[in-house]
Amino acid sequence: MNKAENGNIKKRSAILLIHCPDRTGLVASVTEFIGRNNGNILYLEQYVDMEKKIFFMRVEWDLSGFLIADEKIGVEFDSSIGNKFQMKKELHFSDEILRMAVFVSDMPHCLYDIISRFSSGEWNVNVPVIISNHQTLQPIAEKFGIDFKFFPVNKSAKHEQEKLELKLLEDLKIDFIVLARYMQILSEDFVSRFPNKIINIHHSFLPAFPGAKPYHSAYERGVKVIGSTSHYVTVDLDAGPIIEQDVVRVSHSDSIQDLIRKGKDLEKVVLSRAVWNHIQRKILVYDNRTVIFS
Amino acid sequence: MNKAENGNIKKRSAILLIHCPDRTGLVASVTEFIGRNNGNILYLEQYVDMEKKIFFMRVEWDLSGFLIADEKIGVEFDSSIGNKFQMKKELHFSDEILRMAVFVSDMPHCLYDIISRFSSGEWNVNVPVIISNHQTLQPIAEKFGIDFKFFPVNKSAKHEQEKLELKLLEDLKIDFIVLARYMQILSEDFVSRFPNKIINIHHSFLPAFPGAKPYHSAYERGVKVIGSTSHYVTVDLDAGPIIEQDVVRVSHSDSIQDLIRKGKDLEKVVLSRAVWNHIQRKILVYDNRTVIFS
Amino acid sequence: MNKAENGNIKKRSAILLIHCPDRTGLVASVTEFIGRNNGNILYLEQYVDMEKKIFFMRVEWDLSGFLIADEKIGVEFDSSIGNKFQMKKELHFSDEILRMAVFVSDMPHCLYDIISRFSSGEWNVNVPVIISNHQTLQPIAEKFGIDFKFFPVNKSAKHEQEKLELKLLEDLKIDFIVLARYMQILSEDFVSRFPNKIINIHHSFLPAFPGAKPYHSAYERGVKVIGSTSHYVTVDLDAGPIIEQDVVRVSHSDSIQDLIRKGKDLEKVVLSRAVWNHIQRKILVYDNRTVIFS
Amino acid sequence: MNKAENGNIKKRSAILLIHCPDRTGLVASVTEFIGRNNGNILYLEQYVDMEKKIFFMRVEWDLSGFLIADEKIGVEFDSSIGNKFQMKKELHFSDEILRMAVFVSDMPHCLYDIISRFSSGEWNVNVPVIISNHQTLQPIAEKFGIDFKFFPVNKSAKHEQEKLELKLLEDLKIDFIVLARYMQILSEDFVSRFPNKIINIHHSFLPAFPGAKPYHSAYERGVKVIGSTSHYVTVDLDAGPIIEQDVVRVSHSDSIQDLIRKGKDLEKVVLSRAVWNHIQRKILVYDNRTVIFS
Repeated sequence: MNKAENGNIKKRSAILLIHCPDRTGLVASVTEFIGRNNGNILYLEQYVDMEKKIFFMRVEWDLSGFLIADEKIGVEFDSSIGNKFQMKKELHFSDEILRMAVFVSDMPHCLYDIISRFSSGEWNVNVPVIISNHQTLQPIAEKFGIDFKFFPVNKSAKHEQEKLELKLLEDLKIDFIVLARYMQILSEDFVSRFPNKIINIHHSFLPAFPGAKPYHSAYERGVKVIGSTSHYVTVDLDAGPIIEQDVVRVSHSDSIQDLIRKGKDLEKVVLSRAVWNHIQRKILVYDNRTVIFS
Repeated sequence: MNKAENGNIKKRSAILLIHCPDRTGLVASVTEFIGRNNGNILYLEQYVDMEKKIFFMRVEWDLSGFLIADEKIGVEFDSSIGNKFQMKKELHFSDEILRMAVFVSDMPHCLYDIISRFSSGEWNVNVPVIISNHQTLQPIAEKFGIDFKFFPVNKSAKHEQEKLELKLLEDLKIDFIVLARYMQILSEDFVSRFPNKIINIHHSFLPAFPGAKPYHSAYERGVKVIGSTSHYVTVDLDAGPIIEQDVVRVSHSDSIQDLIRKGKDLEKVVLSRAVWNHIQRKILVYDNRTVIFS
Repeated sequence: MNKAENGNIKKRSAILLIHCPDRTGLVASVTEFIGRNNGNILYLEQYVDMEKKIFFMRVEWDLSGFLIADEKIGVEFDSSIGNKFQMKKELHFSDEILRMAVFVSDMPHCLYDIISRFSSGEWNVNVPVIISNHQTLQPIAEKFGIDFKFFPVNKSAKHEQEKLELKLLEDLKIDFIVLARYMQILSEDFVSRFPNKIINIHHSFLPAFPGAKPYHSAYERGVKVIGSTSHYVTVDLDAGPIIEQDVVRVSHSDSIQDLIRKGKDLEKVVLSRAVWNHIQRKILVYDNRTVIFS
Repeated sequence: MNKAENGNIKKRSAILLIHCPDRTGLVASVTEFIGRNNGNILYLEQYVDMEKKIFFMRVEWDLSGFLIADEKIGVEFDSSIGNKFQMKKELHFSDEILRMAVFVSDMPHCLYDIISRFSSGEWNVNVPVIISNHQTLQPIAEKFGIDFKFFPVNKSAKHEQEKLELKLLEDLKIDFIVLARYMQILSEDFVSRFPNKIINIHHSFLPAFPGAKPYHSAYERGVKVIGSTSHYVTVDLDAGPIIEQDVVRVSHSDSIQDLIRKGKDLEKVVLSRAVWNHIQRKILVYDNRTVIFS
């Protein structure tokens, strides 16, 4: 990713995500490290999984006046305390602008919602490309001047098409992918190239109704709420770490078409909340579960 | 059931629930039948399953001045229009007071909630007995002067114990059963004796997490909402017609104990809403789905 | 409005909305009228306000084979039964395509949502014009080829500008208006020209926080839920009949900016649900309250 | 309060709630203080109001092996760091069992819910007395062996009755009061004796519908959601710091009686969540707003 590609520079801050075995003194060590180097902590949130004895932390501090240069923070942190406590860490900077690719098939509702958010500046991301296995939504991409690439994925052509997609994503330096009702299953190889960097929206409250046609199944089962689930994609279909879920009430008088219509509104917002948290660097994945900092 | 056992008499009304193949003139025929016999319709709700072409209706009318005696309404209705339109019907009277048996194991939260509702007059039911496979909750029953019967159900004794239970339920003229976190599976024979008359609360949003320990499974899966489901019991475990569902948000910071605590509040209210609708005669079951009139 | 302007013709049906003083025989009379003239009822919903003794009904029937011509249905209905029962009625046809004007100021989120819905065919409406007191959103209108008219409304120019707006709305045969975060108060004269035909979205759960800056007020008050309200505009500011409301949880850690961000997602969906119900002819207004048929 | 009055002793921990002007080094100082004295931090949560520059923190640590005796922790903390940073603090111990008085009038639903929670051990509190301005609910208190005191409060007797109540509360060493649908307004003098220690449930989503008969007002206004609000009582009626709120959907077909019935279920759970957070020492009040730690 490039810094400040779009010139929208606010006060710069560093964001550090950590997890490690729990023990005494972790918070004190980290905050002391930041304070000693003249960093002013803006937000700090920590959480301990008491069962597995794992410590999680997200800390964000103001970089103006910080004594360590950006590119050396990671090394210094590790040698000072990270290694000692076996910390796994991610370090980000607030002025990085993530590069996001959107994958779609032929339903436009999530795409419209995504476009409206980054076009209006609600999301600070760059979207170099929209990728699809259909040409249906190309006109929408064109209206907004976004590159649209058509990859006719099907059973026989899957491997080859994915290779081309991966090449394109690499060339465009894509940081993460949003599957906005993309109706193809990505291969294990593809998924492994973007660990915890592919966000999918599934149109049911998982683990209920995985797979195809969940609204039809929900109707058949006669449920009184329907839901949506956004999650990171893993090699196990619809079984990746859940980022966000929400539901809406339905009744016997709702037809399958009504479920689909009501569900679309859920899908949009549940997917967008997940993307927001990803962009804000608020998600830590551990043991196929997410810690979402507030 | 006995009429007006508790003396709480309001204006008497008749409640008719109908379903039949859809065709022209059904509403007109039914309303005309009631009007012609001098009944004043208080509520009428109909619903057509457009896919299966089934007509559903609930109609309630004032009996003061109605020209047909209670015990003859059913016959007259059938011969006038019911048979002609192949209507399946249930006929109830507003001053019937249903006799409800509560089955519990060792968790008191749903039992307390149920007791508070009928003790305070929110539910117009009689509760002749609380049945349990444990003795834990006997003191609560005693505080409220309700008979408590202990049946030590276990694998070997199940058949025999259920026979005794059924005998008791028959002697007490029980109309319907509420399983208030009763942790035993009823036999097929038992269930078939109370079709659509046993209401269970399952502590997950079915069809997710059927069976035992759903909160533990929900925690493991890392879901962001947990739910509860009330349903009529059928011979397929946790697969009967759903009456009501609701959910509550959870986060990574909720332990299994937190899920259990938050879930209890859901279980109480989701079970009670189902019982309320059952008592009000607002539920029609068709094809393993419920139509809930408003 | 023109019929089938966009060629999207489904099986034609008539929709009748009625309210009148409650009495015996209303449902039977209406259904008998439709049946006698060879109409097949598709949906029927009725509701009685037991306190005020008012009867409300929405009935929709298939017009293929109906014996009365469209333009005579109203007259025939009134002379047969409408007048007798003092019924106030609205009659619509399913192939009418409503003409909707959208008013905006400078926030794009509701506008994007609305455009995505009618562009994708979710809403069967025509949108001849977007009207604004700012020029900010003109580029969005242009992307989608929708006329954008700028009316620089301010205190001194209000009366004059509204006259021009009304002229335009009349020329364009606008059926109803959606205020998609339009931040000007319409005059009494303007409002009276579109009774129950102007839908506004207010960014609070009314009657809490009427007027300006509700998110700021909500933050100050320290509420734990924020909401949105869609309602028909009347001459009393933020006091018109409520069509739809919904809420989202917030916490102490949400800043005013967070409330605004979360609230936007509510505003979109609460406004759109109202417009959907309006288009479907599912709303009846009585005594400043709405009856929303399902 | 007495420690371990009921013998339910778990691993002892200390809970410290702090707020002070924000500045660098606060978290590090507190965690260093605890670590230096051999305390193992179990939970830590901090929050900074970025607008008002106020720092809030809740930290809980294991006392086994802690080097400072309970009664000296406060003084040591203040002299080490509290005074330096102008910290306002509350210090609690996990084995303190709070003494709670419940005030009721004549509606039993919240009282039943509260009794079920502490009787079943969900809440670790002692309830030495139930106080009422009616005698209606005395039989419920008696069933559970709880003292019931009747104070016939009315306009002329208010001052005198409150003096007697205060005397009783003092004699019983009451720590906090729950108003479980207590329909009397407490005097300014009374309220000032229990700052942030009186929890009320109001049956609307405040600030909408303060004062009497909110369900009637909600019905009149035609809202589509109703709510409940639990808050600390201050001298301004229904304007104290909000602890918890929740809502439930309603429709035009709900009568005032339906709103009351649905609202009761909300009142119970919204009040109980507030009491839970209070007992867990998770609430900090600042500027008439609550910080609720998770």
